[in-house]
Amino acid sequence: MANVPTSVKDAVLRRVADALLGDARATILEANARDMAGGEEQGLSSAMLDRLRLDGARLDGIAKGLADVIALPDPVGVEREKKTLPNGVEISRMRVPLGLVGIIYESRPNVTIDAAALTLKSGNAVILRGGKEAFQSNRAFASVFDHALEAEGLPPAAVTLLPTTDRRATLALIQQTGVVDVVIPRGGEGLMHFVSENARVPVLQHFKGVCHVYVDASADLTMATRIVLNSKVQRPGVCNALETLLVDARVADAFLPAVAKELIAAGVTLRGDAAVCARVPQAEPATDADWDTEYLDLVLSIAVVDGLEPALAHVAQHGSGHTECIVTADTEQAERWLHEVDASLVLVNASTRFNDGGELGLGAEIGISTTKLHAYGPMGLEELCSSKWVGRGTGQIRG
Amino acid sequence: MANVPTSVKDAVLRRVADALLGDARATILEANARDMAGGEEQGLSSAMLDRLRLDGARLDGIAKGLADVIALPDPVGVEREKKTLPNGVEISRMRVPLGLVGIIYESRPNVTIDAAALTLKSGNAVILRGGKEAFQSNRAFASVFDHALEAEGLPPAAVTLLPTTDRRATLALIQQTGVVDVVIPRGGEGLMHFVSENARVPVLQHFKGVCHVYVDASADLTMATRIVLNSKVQRPGVCNALETLLVDARVADAFLPAVAKELIAAGVTLRGDAAVCARVPQAEPATDADWDTEYLDLVLSIAVVDGLEPALAHVAQHGSGHTECIVTADTEQAERWLHEVDASLVLVNASTRFNDGGELGLGAEIGISTTKLHAYGPMGLEELCSSKWVGRGTGQIRG
Repeated sequence: MANVPTSVKDAVLRRVADALLGDARATILEANARDMAGGEEQGLSSAMLDRLRLDGARLDGIAKGLADVIALPDPVGVEREKKTLPNGVEISRMRVPLGLVGIIYESRPNVTIDAAALTLKSGNAVILRGGKEAFQSNRAFASVFDHALEAEGLPPAAVTLLPTTDRRATLALIQQTGVVDVVIPRGGEGLMHFVSENARVPVLQHFKGVCHVYVDASADLTMATRIVLNSKVQRPGVCNALETLLVDARVADAFLPAVAKELIAAGVTLRGDAAVCARVPQAEPATDADWDTEYLDLVLSIAVVDGLEPALAHVAQHGSGHTECIVTADTEQAERWLHEVDASLVLVNASTRFNDGGELGLGAEIGISTTKLHAYGPMGLEELCSSKWVGRGTGQIRG
Repeated sequence: MANVPTSVKDAVLRRVADALLGDARATILEANARDMAGGEEQGLSSAMLDRLRLDGARLDGIAKGLADVIALPDPVGVEREKKTLPNGVEISRMRVPLGLVGIIYESRPNVTIDAAALTLKSGNAVILRGGKEAFQSNRAFASVFDHALEAEGLPPAAVTLLPTTDRRATLALIQQTGVVDVVIPRGGEGLMHFVSENARVPVLQHFKGVCHVYVDASADLTMATRIVLNSKVQRPGVCNALETLLVDARVADAFLPAVAKELIAAGVTLRGDAAVCARVPQAEPATDADWDTEYLDLVLSIAVVDGLEPALAHVAQHGSGHTECIVTADTEQAERWLHEVDASLVLVNASTRFNDGGELGLGAEIGISTTKLHAYGPMGLEELCSSKWVGRGTGQIRG
């Protein structure tokens, strides 16, 4: 797969998109209906059923996602950092696929297409292990991909859906040292811990996003309110949503009642420390557990801190390496925040919701890594590649 | 350690170098003499004893290595790939240390200083587990580092030598999920397998180097001889030395007897397939195992292949992802080799011995990774770092 020309990879993706818009649509929706019926029988929550559900509009969206991947530049074979050594050897770093990527995910069946598209475009082969609730939908999607690969003369095994969602099969997948080059788990904490405890192959983890906004005394408080609101309520169920607001004590009186009013109007439940509860009667007292909780919901914990140092300490202790923002008009504080906070995206005066492959210009992402090895932050096509060194000489030897 | 200024890190390294050149020299040599006596008592081979041995010249060399690291630019905090998003947020990628690095190595005590210097300069903390034969020497080196850190107001724990070489301690080290960010093993196959079987934390492996030179029919045969000789005999005991020579059948008659003569004159034992043995009477017949063997010695296996395709297939089957060279005058063959061979350094017309951090301009290396995740090839200061995203906004929110 590493040496398949871009035009062939794009042709496969176009065939898949065409099938989703045409021939395969009925089969996919029928398979999904079986999954939905099974899910209802098992008593899945309405949120789970919504994640599982496919319809015409969602299939259109997946096809649109494929068109976006087709439009992205092929990372494979691109040479960077070219230079000529003193001895005349021309060296550079050439992007190469990682090899065989395992992707383990839960209920959303669209991940089958999205993940297969990104791994194919980046020259990798992929083994997919989707959620058991979505098994029929995933099989239908994988079958579309297999036909498209075959039609372009490529091995269907390049996109392989595990034929079972049995945990023993997952265990076997994550222990294939020397065969599977990397595993990317996407899902809840249970899955993440199962993979990290049992994997023998390298893992790119996306752990939880306990994201903070720290509002410094110098902040434009109107801007701070806008950023806090957007970070918390624009889409509360995702990993880059705000979970804890830290407010500099010097602006607690000026900022807290005002921002609380807007948050409450937006349906957010507030949990605060004593300094917050004293200023915001509607806030419930926060417990110790709140500072480490990823609510993924319209809930926000708020603490008052005595300036930058305690804010940095709070984030170092409770942050999850995901997204951390300061709102400030003070350049020195801003630069300290950018340099000293350890997170995949560190922001000044912008919404935490920007930690996203599309927003940061990667085009599409397969997840957001919160481990520092290999990729830290959104993983797009380039992060699904490695770089080998290449050298072009004219007979040079080492002295 | 991530936020220690460059000047302070360099001052620590300067103190260590000064101690090696002065105050600490006698103590270190005395500790090493105890290790040497122990090694002789245990009946270590003369090669092992040579690796273990320190003397004034070797300490001078280690001090020179420290000066080289001082002269390298600090990677931490460097911003690359700056761009402004359409919404006006300025984003970039800022290099950050990996965190806590574990380094597990065998007999050479100089690794204690080299590895500590590179991890310190790249803003990491390090836990070192050296070989048991070198324990006294390593303790003496670590003590020099501790004093230098303390003298600059830094915690001595930033460079920690495990107080035991017990395998259970190593096991504990490589299973510290959430504490140790990455482990880098450097040593023989036994150590590598122990680490890869048992690690729970990410591992950057350097497996063996079964490196090839393929001499194409279009090659300048004088150049080919020079490259083969240099790759094999300049320093046969290292991982980037040549282990298998592949010769295009079309030049087997013209090339093999000539290159064999020079290799034999240089003391190299030859092992060949039937086509080689027919042309080189001194060659012993190669067994199947030879094609997968890293000799690390003056031994070379040679096979005749029918052009580029079988050469690529041989390297794909038997190569170890380390260093692979083609000698050719045909640009198309050269470019196919560069694109299609999967190795950390792929070369045209240059010695395999160039796969080295110093030679490739990294300044110094902590090892050569043959795993594709995170780093593929020599690991210098930049490869001991990750990159976080940083964003500077003016109040932007997501729509």
